[in-house]
Amino acid sequence: MTALIGIDWGSSNLRAFRYDAGGNVTERRSSPRGITTVAAGDFEAVLGTVIAGWSDAHVPVVLAGMVGSRNGMREVPYLPCPVDLAQLASAVTQVVTALGRCHIVPGVMVKREGAPAEVMRGEETQVLGSGVRDGTVVLPGTHSKWTRVERGRIVDFRTAMTGELFAILLGHSLLGRLTEVARDDHDAFELGARRALADPMLSMLLFSARAEVVTGGLPGSSVPSYLSGLLIGAEIGAMTRRDLQPTLIGDPTLCARYRRVFELADVGPVTIVEGDAATERGLWTIGRAVG
Amino acid sequence: MTALIGIDWGSSNLRAFRYDAGGNVTERRSSPRGITTVAAGDFEAVLGTVIAGWSDAHVPVVLAGMVGSRNGMREVPYLPCPVDLAQLASAVTQVVTALGRCHIVPGVMVKREGAPAEVMRGEETQVLGSGVRDGTVVLPGTHSKWTRVERGRIVDFRTAMTGELFAILLGHSLLGRLTEVARDDHDAFELGARRALADPMLSMLLFSARAEVVTGGLPGSSVPSYLSGLLIGAEIGAMTRRDLQPTLIGDPTLCARYRRVFELADVGPVTIVEGDAATERGLWTIGRAVG
Repeated sequence: MTALIGIDWGSSNLRAFRYDAGGNVTERRSSPRGITTVAAGDFEAVLGTVIAGWSDAHVPVVLAGMVGSRNGMREVPYLPCPVDLAQLASAVTQVVTALGRCHIVPGVMVKREGAPAEVMRGEETQVLGSGVRDGTVVLPGTHSKWTRVERGRIVDFRTAMTGELFAILLGHSLLGRLTEVARDDHDAFELGARRALADPMLSMLLFSARAEVVTGGLPGSSVPSYLSGLLIGAEIGAMTRRDLQPTLIGDPTLCARYRRVFELADVGPVTIVEGDAATERGLWTIGRAVG
Repeated sequence: MTALIGIDWGSSNLRAFRYDAGGNVTERRSSPRGITTVAAGDFEAVLGTVIAGWSDAHVPVVLAGMVGSRNGMREVPYLPCPVDLAQLASAVTQVVTALGRCHIVPGVMVKREGAPAEVMRGEETQVLGSGVRDGTVVLPGTHSKWTRVERGRIVDFRTAMTGELFAILLGHSLLGRLTEVARDDHDAFELGARRALADPMLSMLLFSARAEVVTGGLPGSSVPSYLSGLLIGAEIGAMTRRDLQPTLIGDPTLCARYRRVFELADVGPVTIVEGDAATERGLWTIGRAVG
């Protein structure tokens, strides 16, 4: 018996969770059909393929992530901070489909006079599903999110383009051309991280990857590790206060890198929550609230 | 009569200057044959085409820039800071060619225990040719250089990858995809610059370009201007002390943007030196010293 279907539908992939009446996930599926691969009008068909056999169209489907953006299944306006799970649940947009009722979770924004705007879609469900009631929750990734949670509400957040910068610098800048074969170099990673923590002015640090190579300080194969250290170090250096006890949500390998840089910055203890666990809990809580 | 030929040969183009015996430039030529377009062994032929008719092979040729790098005409080791024009002249590498004696100017490096390495090739000739004896000389561009000059010597410098970041962010990140048609938007430029000056943590600022667009704060066509403001603001914010009276060398349009951000940062007065004038003077001074 399926009691609820939860979907985390981002730009580049989709993950689906099947719940029993007790809120336990009994099956997981994933698909590379992120919203950037889906033409307008095809969302229902793609979703139907992914969740085939799970439902008889009477089971509610809760969807979070970029599926609620302009290029998604249906645009759902952002809710301004502060936001809790109950508010997310009461602001879902319902879309009636042949697959059953789909409830699309809104994204969250920061929009304040004098401050840069911020937006997220999908991370709000993970953050509030993590169980953290008060603290700083960090989601490393393409666009790392640093969220401040107070009494179970997201009250503020910032975004660092760390993962995207890493990818485009290696793929399209002269730094990438230094690297013929990449080697995981822990010392280079820590060197980059320590330098960026000491002086997190990223635009002044990046070129040092090239300068170290041409002056013999670093082999070209270690540039990706050094660059990873610089970028994560600059992010954590920019955001960290020493009294922080952060929770990390996401991919275990990436979270381990962030934990190491938090240690170098003398920040901790650090808690790591596995990404799917947080998503599953968030979608379930919203799904129960919407019916 | 040609007394000296000066060449500024960078990665993506070449500029040639013909001098009379009084050090006046009597003719200028340029070519898109930067060193990245020239195969090993073809440098002499390319140079010969550019300076055709200027010389009878008895006129010395002084070359500065990436032409002295590993992928150039001949690799010339970097000189460590501090460096003045006389030291550059005494460290040229001489290459005898059918075109006459070619003197390749070394680049300059910073290599100190505990500090990120730094390298430049070509900018040292501009900085020392600018006539600045003491002060901060900034060369905005793909890799902006911030050099500290004391008693006519370059004593230290840092590099900001500002121009390259701008190009790859617009060309390859999701920020570029927001911009269908670019429009020069001075207000967006200043908004970006003020935000970055207030908090020059670049990785935390870049995403705001996207967030402003999706929340209606900025049209997509203004993203390049906003991004330019963010990047130049972050660079100047990271490097600036208020007692600075910087000299800018380079392209007039780009120097005007930097001057505006210096004004926003309450730094000045700012002096602008046209790039070619500094190069011409630097190459002439080195050429006179080598023969």
